[in-house]
Amino acid sequence: MTETGTIRVGVLGAKGKVGTAICEAVEAASDLTLVAAVDRDDSLSDLTDNGAQVVVDFTHPDVVMENLEFLIGNGIHAVVGTTGFDEARLEQVRGWLARQPEVGVLIAPNFAIGAVLCMKFAEQAARFFDSAEIVELHHPNKADAPSGTAARTADLIGSARDNAGCPPMPDATSTALYGARGASVSGVHVHSIRLAGLVAHQEVLFGTQGETLTIRHDSIDRTSFAPGVLLGVRGVAHRSGLTIGIDPLMDL
Amino acid sequence: MTETGTIRVGVLGAKGKVGTAICEAVEAASDLTLVAAVDRDDSLSDLTDNGAQVVVDFTHPDVVMENLEFLIGNGIHAVVGTTGFDEARLEQVRGWLARQPEVGVLIAPNFAIGAVLCMKFAEQAARFFDSAEIVELHHPNKADAPSGTAARTADLIGSARDNAGCPPMPDATSTALYGARGASVSGVHVHSIRLAGLVAHQEVLFGTQGETLTIRHDSIDRTSFAPGVLLGVRGVAHRSGLTIGIDPLMDL
Amino acid sequence: MTETGTIRVGVLGAKGKVGTAICEAVEAASDLTLVAAVDRDDSLSDLTDNGAQVVVDFTHPDVVMENLEFLIGNGIHAVVGTTGFDEARLEQVRGWLARQPEVGVLIAPNFAIGAVLCMKFAEQAARFFDSAEIVELHHPNKADAPSGTAARTADLIGSARDNAGCPPMPDATSTALYGARGASVSGVHVHSIRLAGLVAHQEVLFGTQGETLTIRHDSIDRTSFAPGVLLGVRGVAHRSGLTIGIDPLMDL
Amino acid sequence: MTETGTIRVGVLGAKGKVGTAICEAVEAASDLTLVAAVDRDDSLSDLTDNGAQVVVDFTHPDVVMENLEFLIGNGIHAVVGTTGFDEARLEQVRGWLARQPEVGVLIAPNFAIGAVLCMKFAEQAARFFDSAEIVELHHPNKADAPSGTAARTADLIGSARDNAGCPPMPDATSTALYGARGASVSGVHVHSIRLAGLVAHQEVLFGTQGETLTIRHDSIDRTSFAPGVLLGVRGVAHRSGLTIGIDPLMDL
Repeated sequence: MTETGTIRVGVLGAKGKVGTAICEAVEAASDLTLVAAVDRDDSLSDLTDNGAQVVVDFTHPDVVMENLEFLIGNGIHAVVGTTGFDEARLEQVRGWLARQPEVGVLIAPNFAIGAVLCMKFAEQAARFFDSAEIVELHHPNKADAPSGTAARTADLIGSARDNAGCPPMPDATSTALYGARGASVSGVHVHSIRLAGLVAHQEVLFGTQGETLTIRHDSIDRTSFAPGVLLGVRGVAHRSGLTIGIDPLMDL
Repeated sequence: MTETGTIRVGVLGAKGKVGTAICEAVEAASDLTLVAAVDRDDSLSDLTDNGAQVVVDFTHPDVVMENLEFLIGNGIHAVVGTTGFDEARLEQVRGWLARQPEVGVLIAPNFAIGAVLCMKFAEQAARFFDSAEIVELHHPNKADAPSGTAARTADLIGSARDNAGCPPMPDATSTALYGARGASVSGVHVHSIRLAGLVAHQEVLFGTQGETLTIRHDSIDRTSFAPGVLLGVRGVAHRSGLTIGIDPLMDL
Repeated sequence: MTETGTIRVGVLGAKGKVGTAICEAVEAASDLTLVAAVDRDDSLSDLTDNGAQVVVDFTHPDVVMENLEFLIGNGIHAVVGTTGFDEARLEQVRGWLARQPEVGVLIAPNFAIGAVLCMKFAEQAARFFDSAEIVELHHPNKADAPSGTAARTADLIGSARDNAGCPPMPDATSTALYGARGASVSGVHVHSIRLAGLVAHQEVLFGTQGETLTIRHDSIDRTSFAPGVLLGVRGVAHRSGLTIGIDPLMDL
Repeated sequence: MTETGTIRVGVLGAKGKVGTAICEAVEAASDLTLVAAVDRDDSLSDLTDNGAQVVVDFTHPDVVMENLEFLIGNGIHAVVGTTGFDEARLEQVRGWLARQPEVGVLIAPNFAIGAVLCMKFAEQAARFFDSAEIVELHHPNKADAPSGTAARTADLIGSARDNAGCPPMPDATSTALYGARGASVSGVHVHSIRLAGLVAHQEVLFGTQGETLTIRHDSIDRTSFAPGVLLGVRGVAHRSGLTIGIDPLMDL
């Protein structure tokens, strides 16, 4: 039963770990109504039949494009956390959206509000300091190093420094063991720690004469994406076209 | 000897610890020229005689008003780190400036760029989290607790949350030892640590479901104000009237 | 089915959150065999019938004494995480043990190995520094402040300093807001933070001329007691009589 | 003028930065008397002429062996912070000491008490955790990476784990940028950060199921060696022969 004035929300991938948590979060929010919880054995028409206005997609790279074509074609806004979007896929989505100019699609690599703020603040701070380095810390089951978020943060810092005409960072290292100084991403040294007992953490360090600024994000629970997904659900209808990342909706 | 095209800078309180460091920083900057280093036994006319365009004042509450009246009256811009400005004093300065509309005066309680960014980011982040608390850590010779910077940060967080209509922070504490939960400033709990081996540090913690964001500023050297003072010297001439704090000059 | 050479383990409170995790941990350990999982509706005789050699008790203050009388009386070693032991209760347990000198009972307020090491190291470091303070950080549903672990750590630091003849810690605070400097426990300032997104964390800070040492424990999962419980199960049979805390078994 | 009952102390390298700080610290200590402050243009006989009982040597690898031969030959105990001791040099010192069995020589790579405790605690904690990594952070003028202290800490952790029969640390990394996972020292990943605004810092991280333990040492002032040097001066006379590192004197 839908309450008047609430947003009618559908969830794709509803029985996955993430999808289950999103269904719970939608149901707990008084301004949202869950009208369709669709998983792999269900039909996409459940979404249209139940009048979904916004659909959240945390599925799989193999099916997400098909889902998006359906959603956009039916005038439904989408909030997408599924991975695997390269430029070709984004271009395809933009093409579909060109024919439905009132629809909004939000594709975000990271819905944790703290992670997004960490990146934003890192970008803002970058030009005021002589040095910047990143430490990212994750559970030992992670396959890649550094994390995508750390690499993206390094890119943002590197670009901000380039745009401001900052000189290279000071570093007198002349003798180093292989790997001691980390990986260099856009000129920023990035260090990856893998430790039992951790989940997902990132620390960005800035330094200048006599002072340092540290911005740290700790995510200790897989549900930390929920507040960001809801923020996307509430905002996507007001942004037609393709939006990448939740920060444009945060009005920073 | 003044180089063409540089800003002609005077320093008041030039023989104090802070003043000495500022004189050195001005002399090291290629776009600034130190034209007058004035201390308590010198005459203010050294500043006008040497054509100072911007004067830095790190003196004492007893003399700073007299200095400002002189500087403004002579059309000299001022960058002021001296403490003790209440609303009455600021009103007086505004009055003097009304008669010299081209002059700019910057009065800042904190010139450490990292501290300013820490406050700014705390203010921006405040409305996205359920909880916020502040820990400030200083050397054990500090007389007041909490620090002025921590109290100001708490005010900024409290106002940002009020403006966004955030609910009260969750806190189920029912049994507490006197002082355990810190001091409450604008609804934000603030904790003051005094420890040998520290200088001046502040940590702002934000938390929501499954994630936390921490912004930390460490100042380990009294010279950490220098980059911020130079930023003020370079920017004050472009902002006529009274400016409070260096953040308006940081273009965040 | 019990494998030869393994320790036969029973669990009391087996269907509670903690008990369930302990059952899983026992079953996953190749040197332990779970022979009885007993909850409130089961009979204690399940433990003797199945030949339990060591029993883990995470139940309730109302029933733990009855459980212990039964276990000791039947020559079964016990590892107890249930709370509520005062000196009178401990004396009662010692009385029962006097009649069964071969039985070992371990009662521990905290089984997290990291928490125990944090306390131990804090105690060892205390006499070498001028200053020591504690920050403990927990989820906002916690009722008491400071935490029991923080109060115990403060006691250990205070005693170590007294024994070494350390002078009072330096502190020039003359103007403070109510609570800013935290609670004083055994002369150590303790600060309690309550923040959404946290679980259970503690930081002990030591400082002397020009340097600080920080010992931090983060527990982000209720299962963090499991390795300590197993350490107790393996060691309790070798320590007859009453043992308080797991550190005597850690051979530090 | 020497007070009765105090230790008569000489300082070699007395006009260097470190030597000056040591002279000040000796003069400030009521149980020590500074009897000779010797620099490169002075004669070593100043030490014997003034009856030095213990001599502190913070000089240079080129002269320290000559100094030690003189001190040991004259029955004077030595506390040495000069670098450059390899096994050949240590063997030479042991040879000189064999002929003067009452003399004590302390050679320490690090006199910061916090750094020594950090290493000691890391060694003690190592066998209780699945994972261990080290982050060391220094000013950007440092030439080598990782720091000697970090490499030594890694060795201690690696040995402790080997002795306890710990399995390899879990690490599922399969795709990594060059250097992202740091340098491997004795099987421990070590990460080196170089940042303006820092001095010398080290963080040792341990993790197991659901919990982590972090031990951090911050040295923000070159005078942080002073308390450790005084501890050496007071203790070296009671330990004849060669002692490496101050921890044997700390009675941990």
